[in-house]
Amino acid sequence: MDPDRRARAALSRLAEPGDQLIGARVAALGAVAVLARIRAGTFEGERGERYAARLPGLDVEGDLVAARRAGARLVVPGDEEWPAPVDDLGAGRPVALWVSGAGRLDRAARRAVSVVGARACTHYGERVAADLGAGLAQRGWTVVSGAAFGIDAAAHRGALAVDGVTVAVLAGGVDVVYPRSHDRLLAQVRERGLVVSELPPGSRPTRSRFLMRNRVIAALGRGTVVVEAALRSGARRTADDADQLSRAVMAVPGPVTSTMSAGCHEMVRTRGAALVTDTADVLDQVGELGVDAAPQRRGDERPQDQLDETGMRVLDAVPLRRAAEPGSVARVAGLDVPTVLRILVELGRLGLAHQEAGRWRRTAFRRGGT
Amino acid sequence: MDPDRRARAALSRLAEPGDQLIGARVAALGAVAVLARIRAGTFEGERGERYAARLPGLDVEGDLVAARRAGARLVVPGDEEWPAPVDDLGAGRPVALWVSGAGRLDRAARRAVSVVGARACTHYGERVAADLGAGLAQRGWTVVSGAAFGIDAAAHRGALAVDGVTVAVLAGGVDVVYPRSHDRLLAQVRERGLVVSELPPGSRPTRSRFLMRNRVIAALGRGTVVVEAALRSGARRTADDADQLSRAVMAVPGPVTSTMSAGCHEMVRTRGAALVTDTADVLDQVGELGVDAAPQRRGDERPQDQLDETGMRVLDAVPLRRAAEPGSVARVAGLDVPTVLRILVELGRLGLAHQEAGRWRRTAFRRGGT
Repeated sequence: MDPDRRARAALSRLAEPGDQLIGARVAALGAVAVLARIRAGTFEGERGERYAARLPGLDVEGDLVAARRAGARLVVPGDEEWPAPVDDLGAGRPVALWVSGAGRLDRAARRAVSVVGARACTHYGERVAADLGAGLAQRGWTVVSGAAFGIDAAAHRGALAVDGVTVAVLAGGVDVVYPRSHDRLLAQVRERGLVVSELPPGSRPTRSRFLMRNRVIAALGRGTVVVEAALRSGARRTADDADQLSRAVMAVPGPVTSTMSAGCHEMVRTRGAALVTDTADVLDQVGELGVDAAPQRRGDERPQDQLDETGMRVLDAVPLRRAAEPGSVARVAGLDVPTVLRILVELGRLGLAHQEAGRWRRTAFRRGGT
Repeated sequence: MDPDRRARAALSRLAEPGDQLIGARVAALGAVAVLARIRAGTFEGERGERYAARLPGLDVEGDLVAARRAGARLVVPGDEEWPAPVDDLGAGRPVALWVSGAGRLDRAARRAVSVVGARACTHYGERVAADLGAGLAQRGWTVVSGAAFGIDAAAHRGALAVDGVTVAVLAGGVDVVYPRSHDRLLAQVRERGLVVSELPPGSRPTRSRFLMRNRVIAALGRGTVVVEAALRSGARRTADDADQLSRAVMAVPGPVTSTMSAGCHEMVRTRGAALVTDTADVLDQVGELGVDAAPQRRGDERPQDQLDETGMRVLDAVPLRRAAEPGSVARVAGLDVPTVLRILVELGRLGLAHQEAGRWRRTAFRRGGT
């Protein structure tokens, strides 16, 4: 077996998920050298001792066997199946992913949206999450979530109900069913989709692992939708992670009388989250224009590369789904109307926007081509 | 009686509300001259004929008697009671207002918020409107609405329940009860607040009068809150009016499964309306900073006058109610973090914002002083 794979498998047991020190050193020195230093007791002095402390329990061969037995595989950077979006995590990038399921993770992550929310959700939230899960899956988008009670499970189930692809990112090993009663759900996710973890088989979920897991959920999706969340909630942390990764952050509104929607409203009010009410709204945020703006196409020459910051602000303010009056665009962009009118004409020339009876609308990008 | 008052009373019968031709000519020539030209058949040629056509039915004395009998008075520009905010309507400014009620309109309009929404509202919307009406009134704000079924009535009733001041702007004469069953509601509004119309006594509400009435509701409030609205609705038009008047436009979210909240969500999604969930959120939008930014204080020297456009953008992005991280402020402002940090320090120096454990919050203005 390739020494890098082996070393990464070992590091996934020695280090906790999202360990930035390990991530940075692996990026600089390679996994093999980092593991060798840990073994030799020369890794980062005292700070390295915590990794060495786990060496006695290390059994890479045993982990690989356990993974095989559970139908899981090890996926590392460089593998075809490695999902490029998690590279955006930088030093927090997983050293490896343990993956089980019939899908292929790189493909599943190509057009994916993360849908998260409260465990103690309401029937309303559950219904909206299931509808979003189904709607996204029907349009060929992968639904990423955390297989928790409540919103997570409803989102997975919505995707499964239409035979869509869904990815469950776990805070424990892929062979550790948590919550226990989601045995059947996780089995269904594996049938067409994927169950993913940074942790080797047999690992138990812990509070900090849940928190670090959220960043992988946020990274895998082109955006994160919070369906229901109390003011303080894990789902909002996932949204913060998505935001730091420059992913779209979206929140579903609900009754102002519902504490389970309070976190969502707060996100819209004070954090600039986009309000989304259905699948179309979500795709508005992560859709076709997003395809072009996605990291894998960063190198391409795009018309909007010709725009300065003011131009980008106006482009962002032009709606994709329906046309808006220049005054409305100006308000959203925070610019004066004459400036906006001038730039709208320029956007029209670049094929980025077009006029419909005096109102302006963003021009959807032709897919394909690259 | 002053000839200007008399002429305006006459014009309020000869012209429909919001007639921009009349508004522009009255502003240029005065009401007396405009009325004289209409009588002489020399007003605006053919376009003036529609006003002349109503001359046979004109009976200013009768209107004034009917108003007095209904406990109403005529309020015209220049009167102490004339509400300055409606002057922002420009050529669409009412030529006169017929007012009944114990309140004083100029004072009631000083700190006012308009609360509007669907007639066919849900129990949820009704509850939220009543809570907002009561919450605003309790904090000394006037609640302006249209006395219609549903949200309007709930907003008025909420204000009345806490002995607050509320203003009902009607699409017919102040003595014409519409809808009929709001007889008691309008009587209660008159007791502490005001019933207002552009139309002389006895006038029937019509479709176009409802639409034009909305602009007066929008003008009287420092902002307009839409509590529930279908995708196409009169309430959203009122919000558009408020927007054109540079008033705050706010929408209350609700279940995405409710068609009665669809218009509100759409306003937030595509029109830049602020999402508000309670009275505090509304005051965040129209509150203390708004007092200083309000037209009547335009001449005062304010600290923010020292800010350039970028500075104002950052100030707008700093929340009033809770502190936000510089990164969040930067995102809301659409600026990079170093720039925002530099400006935050400047805002601190000007006493416009302050730091709380690394997070920034807008500093509320001391009231009074002017």
